[in-house]
Amino acid sequence: MNYFSSDFKLGILGGGQLGKMMLTETRKFDIQTYVLDPSAEAPSQYGATKFFQGSLNDYQTVLDLGNQVDVLTIEIENVNLEALETLEKEGKKVFPSPKTLRLISNKGNQKDFYTQHNIPTAPYQRFLTLFALKAEVVNGSIAMPFVWKATEGGYDGNGVKVVRKIEDLDALPETECIAENMIPFKNELAVIVARSASGEIKTYPVVEMEFHPEANQVEYVICPARIDEAVANKAREIALQVSEAYNHVGLLAVEMFQTQNDEILVNEVAPRPHNSGHYSIEASYTSQFEQHIRAILNLPLGNTESKVAGIMVNLVGEEGYTGQVVYENIEQIMAIDGVTPHIYGKRETRPFRKMGHVTIVNQNMYEARKVAQQVKETIRVIAK
Amino acid sequence: MNYFSSDFKLGILGGGQLGKMMLTETRKFDIQTYVLDPSAEAPSQYGATKFFQGSLNDYQTVLDLGNQVDVLTIEIENVNLEALETLEKEGKKVFPSPKTLRLISNKGNQKDFYTQHNIPTAPYQRFLTLFALKAEVVNGSIAMPFVWKATEGGYDGNGVKVVRKIEDLDALPETECIAENMIPFKNELAVIVARSASGEIKTYPVVEMEFHPEANQVEYVICPARIDEAVANKAREIALQVSEAYNHVGLLAVEMFQTQNDEILVNEVAPRPHNSGHYSIEASYTSQFEQHIRAILNLPLGNTESKVAGIMVNLVGEEGYTGQVVYENIEQIMAIDGVTPHIYGKRETRPFRKMGHVTIVNQNMYEARKVAQQVKETIRVIAK
Repeated sequence: MNYFSSDFKLGILGGGQLGKMMLTETRKFDIQTYVLDPSAEAPSQYGATKFFQGSLNDYQTVLDLGNQVDVLTIEIENVNLEALETLEKEGKKVFPSPKTLRLISNKGNQKDFYTQHNIPTAPYQRFLTLFALKAEVVNGSIAMPFVWKATEGGYDGNGVKVVRKIEDLDALPETECIAENMIPFKNELAVIVARSASGEIKTYPVVEMEFHPEANQVEYVICPARIDEAVANKAREIALQVSEAYNHVGLLAVEMFQTQNDEILVNEVAPRPHNSGHYSIEASYTSQFEQHIRAILNLPLGNTESKVAGIMVNLVGEEGYTGQVVYENIEQIMAIDGVTPHIYGKRETRPFRKMGHVTIVNQNMYEARKVAQQVKETIRVIAK
Repeated sequence: MNYFSSDFKLGILGGGQLGKMMLTETRKFDIQTYVLDPSAEAPSQYGATKFFQGSLNDYQTVLDLGNQVDVLTIEIENVNLEALETLEKEGKKVFPSPKTLRLISNKGNQKDFYTQHNIPTAPYQRFLTLFALKAEVVNGSIAMPFVWKATEGGYDGNGVKVVRKIEDLDALPETECIAENMIPFKNELAVIVARSASGEIKTYPVVEMEFHPEANQVEYVICPARIDEAVANKAREIALQVSEAYNHVGLLAVEMFQTQNDEILVNEVAPRPHNSGHYSIEASYTSQFEQHIRAILNLPLGNTESKVAGIMVNLVGEEGYTGQVVYENIEQIMAIDGVTPHIYGKRETRPFRKMGHVTIVNQNMYEARKVAQQVKETIRVIAK
């Protein structure tokens, strides 16, 4: 197949920042892209060969986009799966496959899938309703604290809540859910696995999510994770096991816990480029976005190792600011060696909206970590 | 000044591969861009906020583009300088300035400029006509061999010829020219200097052009150059001296000869991102394209040092092939660690047309050099 400066067309469902960063790679290779997003202001409106405004959840809209391209991929999981299934039946290449997307779309099914495939995961129980869960809590058969998760529609921390007392249940939506044992973990880790259509597989190094000591919010994604090599190897092995179980094509970001006893438990997965891999643009031989393109087009996978240590800091909208975005002190952080801001191209900031990220690279991880803190303390995403 | 996701607009004259690679950076920073190029098929037609088809040499067309933007830059020198002068007079920021562009546009003036500023350059004589040059050769006052250069309009080896015997003069165009002493050089080197509007200056490491042993064609651009540190330091010093003399804003690529006696002689300059800096996308902390954007917007300059050794191989159209391009064996080279092809997005190949480049990076320079040769021997730019 000739992808380069040819008539070949790649469709991308979703035009957010992940799509935008994919387009950097398709432009580098001069691969034609058709992008669909509901917003006319989507970050991917530039850089695509053609940009279409439309609903990702509408059967006909997704079908129409799919029928115009040779291979179809996603940058967001929440798309019309029936349309993808129809397209696949008609012979269209859809990566990740609708089957993979369906398996992942429900957190209860995800957990069952891990259990069926002997993949370690935190113990859990499934409930079709909040009502059913409440009954079990009230009769004492579920111990608190536990982690409540809505099985569908969760995003960026929505749909997840620690339940410490019965009253905490009152604020939760009446929906299908799971109750998961709360794991006192040492580290939250992630491994990105790339798998091509021909079955070639590579894992990226293990990254570590460093949390703010009080706010319980991820502050830094750090590559490589500051963990024992044995634990890192185990995490990569388990990520591979997950990847092979899903039999996916493209990237699979596998989020995991490292327990106090150095067990690895799989938390959840995303079948696409992932926030935990943004560091790779500057730090890795092959960025996760290029790797995703390579994998879904069945090109040889690139080297997943790092040139230098990398740390990623998310740029989210400050609380108390809504309106046209200003990146306060961005010039100050750009004056520091090895600091690269990525601005996603959303004009309006809102509290906690993901507006960009900053990558810090350095030969020395501890130097990078110091700089990351300086970056975090300097730049602010506010409104005019 | 707020450049990021703001109303600020950067104009770029020229939409070729250099413009395309600049747009990767303006997209990363979400800076709005208006691009002008004569071809509707220009590589920069995607990724710009707005793309305009029009002549770069037409006064009014350039003026109109300039009037719509806040800062104006170029990716090719051959643009209407009168329009830039008008724009600058009216207060528009134009980087590089029309003054710099004018100084550089004539190779005779460039040589005189080096002489006036005590910048070492190969001895030369200027002639208003080929006729005048011929007279001097015939009367024996210019010894052969020497290098003939047209003072204007030369590009990629056009407008340069080694004259070994009187008959060689017959094929040359009747135009203003210089006759330059032929320098038996050890190495052809280049240094890219970044200089921001506020005067901050940084140099990139010295790169080396490695020539094919027989064909006398550059095969590899190698960073860092395999030369003594003392010579490298001298080359960077002289590049700085050239940069300060021009007082330019943006990048200045300074091409130099290292003579048999380790003298450094300045050959010529380009006030923009340059082929000799393409390796920086993968190898450097800050790519030359990001650096150009930082410099012209008076942002802090980024770190110019390298993460890893980098080698660049140009992809030019094979002789004997014209038509819709095919990158033969591109998948084979993508299977090698540290190999990144850049496809410029020109649908039609022609003999010697610059169609792309490949960067090879490695912790070990000698390993990179081996891989570069393998790449060179594998990929071919042919037509369907």
